[in-house]
Amino acid sequence: MKTQYYTACSLDGFIADDHHSLDWLFQLGNDADADIETFMAGVGALAMGSSTYEWMLRHHVKPGQPDGQPWPYALPCWVFSSREQAALPGADIHFVRGDVRPVHAEMVAAAKGRNLWVMGGGELVGQFHDHGLLDELIVTIGSVTLGSGAPLLPRRIVSPPLRLLDAKAFGTGFAQLRYEVVRA
Amino acid sequence: MKTQYYTACSLDGFIADDHHSLDWLFQLGNDADADIETFMAGVGALAMGSSTYEWMLRHHVKPGQPDGQPWPYALPCWVFSSREQAALPGADIHFVRGDVRPVHAEMVAAAKGRNLWVMGGGELVGQFHDHGLLDELIVTIGSVTLGSGAPLLPRRIVSPPLRLLDAKAFGTGFAQLRYEVVRA
Repeated sequence: MKTQYYTACSLDGFIADDHHSLDWLFQLGNDADADIETFMAGVGALAMGSSTYEWMLRHHVKPGQPDGQPWPYALPCWVFSSREQAALPGADIHFVRGDVRPVHAEMVAAAKGRNLWVMGGGELVGQFHDHGLLDELIVTIGSVTLGSGAPLLPRRIVSPPLRLLDAKAFGTGFAQLRYEVVRA
Repeated sequence: MKTQYYTACSLDGFIADDHHSLDWLFQLGNDADADIETFMAGVGALAMGSSTYEWMLRHHVKPGQPDGQPWPYALPCWVFSSREQAALPGADIHFVRGDVRPVHAEMVAAAKGRNLWVMGGGELVGQFHDHGLLDELIVTIGSVTLGSGAPLLPRRIVSPPLRLLDAKAFGTGFAQLRYEVVRA
């Protein structure tokens, strides 16, 4: 069981641009999609922050709109939000706030030996890392720079550094770097 | 002849931390050093901004100090600086300011068919890119995050995106991504 941050970002380290848009990412095509499937097959529970959740609602679920779609995850999902969030019918979502440690313990129990996917944003992932609860970073770097936006991981992780496990290309639009978090 | 930005950065896109330090980089060891040698063999002229130059003076040349060393480059070098800079005896350095285009033309002439290395910082590289003068980015990503610092390349390069040419690892401390700049 590992706790993993699997995300896309720009070459200069942003997971979304200043307008919360991922258009820069989707234009790059689907060369990384098969990897997402492979990754998901090992996952047993999800966590995300409120901005990530609200992005999913606006761009995918669109509650009440004719082009809306079902919540895409069958796995149990914990959404960290200090804002009140409406429940989604049929979605296994737990709204939580505050300390990530008890939530991590709940996720571990629910995942039954499979991995935990912390989807982001960077600040939430940073809180898991602060408590020694992050095991891997798997970063799929799109072939763009954004100049500004939402940071990949707003933390200084230098001593000890991360340990690079793998570097590979998916076509010309994506490079994927996989890191192990080394305990101090 | 290509104009290349060859640099090290953190996973989150910073080429130096908030204190202009590269200690996070040097701790990662020398697995990428052989690549620098190979890269340098193709280079005929250098350009850098004033912060990069002043870093070289403080950390390497140290003029007048007992542990000072010679300027490390035999190749002609253009230093962009709006500040007055003292000449270094024996160094082939041209101090310039303003528009990068005439300087690029001078560099091309001096390089005699070899490549131009724009060493940084990010803003100077951005100015070369703004004028369609940047051909390649070769980014050696150290296995750290910094959270803040000097940006890799403070520009939005999305349409068209960059084209990834290669992704490889140097041990566990470095991944290198090589990109071609695609003309719009």
